Amino acid sequence: MNVNDSVTKTKFDNLYSCRESILDALKRTTDVMFGGKQVLVCGYGEVGKGCTAALKGLGATVTVTEVDPICALQACMDGFRVHRLDEVVRQVDVLITCTGNKNVVTRSHMDRLKNGCIVCNMGHSNTEIDVGSLRTPELTWEKVRSQVDHIIWPDGKRIILLAEGRLVNLSCSSVPSFVVSISAATEALALIELFNAPPGRYKHDVYLLPKKMDEYVASLHLSAFEAHLTELSDEQAKYLGLNKAGPFKPNYYRY
Amino acid sequence: MNVNDSVTKTKFDNLYSCRESILDALKRTTDVMFGGKQVLVCGYGEVGKGCTAALKGLGATVTVTEVDPICALQACMDGFRVHRLDEVVRQVDVLITCTGNKNVVTRSHMDRLKNGCIVCNMGHSNTEIDVGSLRTPELTWEKVRSQVDHIIWPDGKRIILLAEGRLVNLSCSSVPSFVVSISAATEALALIELFNAPPGRYKHDVYLLPKKMDEYVASLHLSAFEAHLTELSDEQAKYLGLNKAGPFKPNYYRY
Amino acid sequence: MNVNDSVTKTKFDNLYSCRESILDALKRTTDVMFGGKQVLVCGYGEVGKGCTAALKGLGATVTVTEVDPICALQACMDGFRVHRLDEVVRQVDVLITCTGNKNVVTRSHMDRLKNGCIVCNMGHSNTEIDVGSLRTPELTWEKVRSQVDHIIWPDGKRIILLAEGRLVNLSCSSVPSFVVSISAATEALALIELFNAPPGRYKHDVYLLPKKMDEYVASLHLSAFEAHLTELSDEQAKYLGLNKAGPFKPNYYRY
Amino acid sequence: MNVNDSVTKTKFDNLYSCRESILDALKRTTDVMFGGKQVLVCGYGEVGKGCTAALKGLGATVTVTEVDPICALQACMDGFRVHRLDEVVRQVDVLITCTGNKNVVTRSHMDRLKNGCIVCNMGHSNTEIDVGSLRTPELTWEKVRSQVDHIIWPDGKRIILLAEGRLVNLSCSSVPSFVVSISAATEALALIELFNAPPGRYKHDVYLLPKKMDEYVASLHLSAFEAHLTELSDEQAKYLGLNKAGPFKPNYYRY
Repeated sequence: MNVNDSVTKTKFDNLYSCRESILDALKRTTDVMFGGKQVLVCGYGEVGKGCTAALKGLGATVTVTEVDPICALQACMDGFRVHRLDEVVRQVDVLITCTGNKNVVTRSHMDRLKNGCIVCNMGHSNTEIDVGSLRTPELTWEKVRSQVDHIIWPDGKRIILLAEGRLVNLSCSSVPSFVVSISAATEALALIELFNAPPGRYKHDVYLLPKKMDEYVASLHLSAFEAHLTELSDEQAKYLGLNKAGPFKPNYYRY
Repeated sequence: MNVNDSVTKTKFDNLYSCRESILDALKRTTDVMFGGKQVLVCGYGEVGKGCTAALKGLGATVTVTEVDPICALQACMDGFRVHRLDEVVRQVDVLITCTGNKNVVTRSHMDRLKNGCIVCNMGHSNTEIDVGSLRTPELTWEKVRSQVDHIIWPDGKRIILLAEGRLVNLSCSSVPSFVVSISAATEALALIELFNAPPGRYKHDVYLLPKKMDEYVASLHLSAFEAHLTELSDEQAKYLGLNKAGPFKPNYYRY
Repeated sequence: MNVNDSVTKTKFDNLYSCRESILDALKRTTDVMFGGKQVLVCGYGEVGKGCTAALKGLGATVTVTEVDPICALQACMDGFRVHRLDEVVRQVDVLITCTGNKNVVTRSHMDRLKNGCIVCNMGHSNTEIDVGSLRTPELTWEKVRSQVDHIIWPDGKRIILLAEGRLVNLSCSSVPSFVVSISAATEALALIELFNAPPGRYKHDVYLLPKKMDEYVASLHLSAFEAHLTELSDEQAKYLGLNKAGPFKPNYYRY
Repeated sequence: MNVNDSVTKTKFDNLYSCRESILDALKRTTDVMFGGKQVLVCGYGEVGKGCTAALKGLGATVTVTEVDPICALQACMDGFRVHRLDEVVRQVDVLITCTGNKNVVTRSHMDRLKNGCIVCNMGHSNTEIDVGSLRTPELTWEKVRSQVDHIIWPDGKRIILLAEGRLVNLSCSSVPSFVVSISAATEALALIELFNAPPGRYKHDVYLLPKKMDEYVASLHLSAFEAHLTELSDEQAKYLGLNKAGPFKPNYYRY
């Protein structure tokens, strides 16, 4: 059961949680001021959308890199310039990767970063920044604080590398209990569904959580916000062709 | 071919376009100031997300109604209170429907609206507001401007109904050429695909536009924003298991 | 009595009102989509702050020009790049002046604007754009709509000039009744004060409205938002050295 | 020399710095998720404006209390409901004081807070929350982390008090070096001015920093953002009646 792609899990773990943890991770490690900073975010998936929204909200100027034209167009419509890393690498104050890809930031890029640039990774592996390429004799590593290394070039230039390129939202921030609650509820429901499912419902394959359970996880968490759902009348449910208890959307719905 | 649910079409026609046209429609018809206004938006789908974001950005206080717990939770995380219409109907200055449902706003609700409340519809039919229920002898209709009616209660209370409950984004605003371009490109590609498809690819059924075409439509529009896509290296494409030309996401990806 | 610089007047006429009227003026005249557009705002005073906030909120990328380093620093902290007009003139989709200065946009600048650029003025005179310099034989003017001229260069390039360089917030938008109410109340109170003032309070000079009256105008408009003021206790007023009825701030307070 | 009220000092120490440190202080002490939270901010001065903007940007729903009708009206126009503490005290998840006043939050208020409410102070003294009233036998204090106390009511209700009511931006966050630079530059310039001033320029009184110095401090910090000022031409300076080197604004200008 692929709970990782259920809606509530994706949005909370990837979008809403990262929107806060990028700020938290940067503050706890570097005390940097966000206002006025030039930030480059590589990748405009859920994580990238969260990071850019948070930083824009605090007065940073954010540029985005993307390979997918649909996500690139979303970045444009959300007010971000979309450039290639090569085009902007010399100007950025903070560089954040969240692509899920490897070697997005190479030694060649880091050679061109400006003095004092902060480099960190919010994606889902430690491969996005080619940290290995920084372990060469001419560069000096100086650990200035837990999870914070200064890499010093021969000319004195320093870049500030967080968590040695591992995920800063896990290494340098903490996960709010609300997000844990959403994830745990989703996983528990998946297990209950697998346990209770009549023989034959699931074969040896990977399944998405049934939408109704996804909706159930969401409904369990609404009371924390004193949110009150509207109920469909019989007439309305009939008009929409829906069951009053859900599911309320087709499977391809994007939220 | 269901082009209506392709990503670029959905986002542009429903989210990005409505984010602007709700403001435009309200201004052109009523010249209302948005700052400080209490607005109720019924429905937090793509249209509702666009309307609320725009109004919040201009200093309105927005409350949301929802039937779907996932969308309700999204509204919470985006900073909106989620209530039932009954709970807030007496306080709102502007009431906007975008549910796709029928009789969301009934005569009983409108009886309780405060004097001067603006009522309009951004959903996909003219059924959301029960306008028929307002055509009774004790209420007086006064056309004050094209697309603007005052409905006057016996005690002198007025509500301001726009476009007689039809879609204000079509009736009282205009569609930017950029949105038309996206929609037309999507539709044209769907027709070309149907024309060129080898016999048997499509049966008598409804299909979503192949993702690659969706991505192609997006890529055609990036130059308008001087946006520059990043290209995957061979090594990266292999790492991600993707073709360098796309498609870049699984079909269930939500953007 | 200089009512123009009283707080409520400044903020409503210049900041809050322009935040909405720039959008309204651009939509009514050009139907342009704001999302993804590159906008240049000349001047980051109250009007510039309003225009930039509104456009940023709708997904435009905004750059600012400024002569005053304090306002320039504010623009940085609010997330805008600060450049000189010369540096960015070739890239912008929309160019808005709000400096109060003259000849901020010259013929030389307009020669370098890209095809389709919208040029308009939100400042307090029609001198900011050197419109006179466009009335030369080699340029063709084409009126495409009320308040909208296309100026056509010999190579076919068009710029879209609104209101012939006059204030678009007056020429192409309307002033919300709420703003009129604030302004009228401020002016009326100024006249009442002058009429009632004992001989000698005012000499032949220009005075700012007494702060207490400014506060009174504000308090009169709070009920429109169902806003409830907190009252100081006797103990708190004494602690702060204030009269419970105001004024609440020193004269140099900036709000 | 009152450097505390110079523009750059006020905006950086009070507005821009607090916009970031409120988030930082809350995260480091409580790991709370901001999205969807109901926050009450007492006071809408520079500090309150910073706190509310940051929290709104991250999806919290913010209500404001104010005694000054002008600031209250600003809160309305920025999209916040303005209520008295009594009206909303039972609903809030986070309560932040920034009034500069005393006993804004009393024992009686805290008796009505809901379980788990976070209470903290961003104002300029430790008097805003009546912490003394919580030191009574029936309440239990439990220190759960440095700077974090749980106060436990006889029925088990807990409130989370940060820094025992002292300033959380100093106790639980750190001041970015950029803000320190602005403040130190302002103070140094004030001392230089006093040292260099010809006899008689300053009497035994409190003075604001001359605006030109305020502008100079700002200009020194623009290069950190690669911001480029525009220079007035001779003709423009004459038109505006300004010296090309500043000062650029009258003393009462509010920024």
